[in-house]
Amino acid sequence: MKKELAIVLVSGGMDSLVTAAIASEKYELALLHIKYGQRTEKKELKAFGNIAAFYKVPAGCKVKRKLIVSFEHLKQIGGSSLTDAKMEIPDAAGEASEIPTTYVPFRNAHLLAVATSWAEVTGATKIFIGASEEDSAGYPDCRQDFYEAFNQAIQAGTKPQTHIDIITPLIRMKKADIVKKGIELGAPFALTWSCYRNGKKACGRCDSCARRLKGFKEAGFKDPVKYL
Amino acid sequence: MKKELAIVLVSGGMDSLVTAAIASEKYELALLHIKYGQRTEKKELKAFGNIAAFYKVPAGCKVKRKLIVSFEHLKQIGGSSLTDAKMEIPDAAGEASEIPTTYVPFRNAHLLAVATSWAEVTGATKIFIGASEEDSAGYPDCRQDFYEAFNQAIQAGTKPQTHIDIITPLIRMKKADIVKKGIELGAPFALTWSCYRNGKKACGRCDSCARRLKGFKEAGFKDPVKYL
Repeated sequence: MKKELAIVLVSGGMDSLVTAAIASEKYELALLHIKYGQRTEKKELKAFGNIAAFYKVPAGCKVKRKLIVSFEHLKQIGGSSLTDAKMEIPDAAGEASEIPTTYVPFRNAHLLAVATSWAEVTGATKIFIGASEEDSAGYPDCRQDFYEAFNQAIQAGTKPQTHIDIITPLIRMKKADIVKKGIELGAPFALTWSCYRNGKKACGRCDSCARRLKGFKEAGFKDPVKYL
Repeated sequence: MKKELAIVLVSGGMDSLVTAAIASEKYELALLHIKYGQRTEKKELKAFGNIAAFYKVPAGCKVKRKLIVSFEHLKQIGGSSLTDAKMEIPDAAGEASEIPTTYVPFRNAHLLAVATSWAEVTGATKIFIGASEEDSAGYPDCRQDFYEAFNQAIQAGTKPQTHIDIITPLIRMKKADIVKKGIELGAPFALTWSCYRNGKKACGRCDSCARRLKGFKEAGFKDPVKYL
């Protein structure tokens, strides 16, 4: 039987890699990458290209299986240290109660909207996104509630004959479990870029690096990417 | 007391004009226009500029009150005769049961996502959108259910201290009632562009023109825009 088509949002970071690895077990993959003016745009795009090559997603076939979209508007709107070069990326703050400045307002809704439009046109039935509520910076658009509500919006706002579901396989996983799952599935962590800062190597100090390093340590594996 | 700030999605058509007129009675306006590669992009942008000038929305103040955003991705994704020049815009079909090719898959979710991010950054508390379920082409993203679900996604996916609501004042109105409401509020219909086709004058035959003309006729007013 022909496998169903699933769209996977692949930023190029470790969570989206493991999400693609999980999706690839059961579905044909269509990989979606979105450049939204974040400072590490080029590094993430390169990581996306390498991950797509690893999972052998063909560039040209009847249904396009790789889509790169470029946004200007999140940078125009601003309000985040990821898109505003004048703001500084903070170091990891431990258990902070405030939502950090790296939050890009409502970003994941934009990503899901693109994935949904693409799914409606290609006939894909699933949208995979590697959001994690359990072990995250507290971004509101990474919470399970948000995905449940967005799923309802998809059911209500697309053609009656389409059936598209958002799947969030990592939503309840800790970083260490995500690392273990990726190792188990042979996911190529060396190809990913997770750092919020745009240095030659990952900084090791921003919130994203700190969570990643902690995850690898707790899982008992060595992170193959290079740090400053 | 200082008025609350409301974002109004203004395409440049008659429904968005009347929506802006309604919002202006109670709120400070911040007008948002989105170019998404539709064939009448230039005409709609011009209409937006004229409507913004009519409602005296200043171009530059502390909080920006006019935002024009440009999308590439809906054209990239395709699947609609509004964004794909190779497809033909159909004439109005009366009471068709199929969703017409002018449907842009899940378009309104993209518009609302931009409005929500902008609202989160500017502190706007309302997002006005001129969708009409009652008298529309049957687009799924114009149904009340969709807006209710998206509202839930906004509540779940934005910062806890933000309170942003989608307002759809036209959702249960027929075109004739929208015309009457606009006339009552002194809305400048002459500035708008509703036609799906990109001719020198409105075609008068596409679904959008047909509904507009019928609405004016039933309301007993003359449409001030020129038709072929």
